[in-house]
Amino acid sequence: MVLKEKTLEVEEIFKGKVFDVTLEKAELENGQQAMRELIHHNGGVCVVPVDEEGNVYMVKQFRYPFKEVLLEVPAGKLEKGENHRECGVRELKEEIGATAESVEYLGCIYPTVAYDTEIIHMYLARGLSFGEQRLDEGEFVDVVKMPFSQAFDMVMNNEIPDSKTQTAILKTYFLLNK
Amino acid sequence: MVLKEKTLEVEEIFKGKVFDVTLEKAELENGQQAMRELIHHNGGVCVVPVDEEGNVYMVKQFRYPFKEVLLEVPAGKLEKGENHRECGVRELKEEIGATAESVEYLGCIYPTVAYDTEIIHMYLARGLSFGEQRLDEGEFVDVVKMPFSQAFDMVMNNEIPDSKTQTAILKTYFLLNK
Repeated sequence: MVLKEKTLEVEEIFKGKVFDVTLEKAELENGQQAMRELIHHNGGVCVVPVDEEGNVYMVKQFRYPFKEVLLEVPAGKLEKGENHRECGVRELKEEIGATAESVEYLGCIYPTVAYDTEIIHMYLARGLSFGEQRLDEGEFVDVVKMPFSQAFDMVMNNEIPDSKTQTAILKTYFLLNK
Repeated sequence: MVLKEKTLEVEEIFKGKVFDVTLEKAELENGQQAMRELIHHNGGVCVVPVDEEGNVYMVKQFRYPFKEVLLEVPAGKLEKGENHRECGVRELKEEIGATAESVEYLGCIYPTVAYDTEIIHMYLARGLSFGEQRLDEGEFVDVVKMPFSQAFDMVMNNEIPDSKTQTAILKTYFLLNK
């Protein structure tokens, strides 16, 4: 079976600061046509910061879509064409005030494969030194430090709903314990 | 620090079949106002089907946002108010033609916390019996069977980018090996 779809028409619906929306006409595998609703997003990066004592640093942040305060690893949105490793290093500095001796790639996730182009790259940061937190204007986060094993248990017990944090913490577990 | 934001105004931008878009004015923690771009989605469910011999069943599917064929665990979109366990059981039947003796909750993920209300619930299905695949019209998927350990290695080697599949496979690993 050949699995592919061809774009026939693109209608611009919305151009935002966070994402754009298009409505696209596509030709399916069987020659029929279908409309595809699409979010365009530049992607992001997240970093799991683990110190010498085995603590991980996360941030508590109000997330508007859920009207909930969520616990997440430090993360940020990429500018178009921006290097994701450099963006991760910058977010680590901004959100928890840390610099790292080693920054190791954990792979990426496609969070919403059906309708959103976003890709989030994940890193593990070790050898941490701490300075001052430097948040963007209008950004409010609380830093939370806990043993990595506690964060791992929270993921397994479904107490950390954020997708990137779950995957990055679980992958880090295997790297730290291999 | 109090972490919260209050919605002041909601503008409807787009009403689609997959998602809706609104532009909302919110009052931030410090009293300032900001615009929030928001995707509204009913959420979804995914299922990791593992048989008695330790094989997992996944599907290969063309994903329009990436113009790539991706390997994913069986999954589907929830109708508004639909029970996610029942939806998971149905998708298992539709996509790989299987019924399961046991369906165990693995928790949920919020794939895109910054701007999308989508929540994906995850299940582990065991005790599988196979019948016929029954796809929706316009749905084209190839079923792939492999040892669970191979799927786990593919996640760790960054060969399966889909977010829900990564988290669900990693959580399943711990359930199978505890």
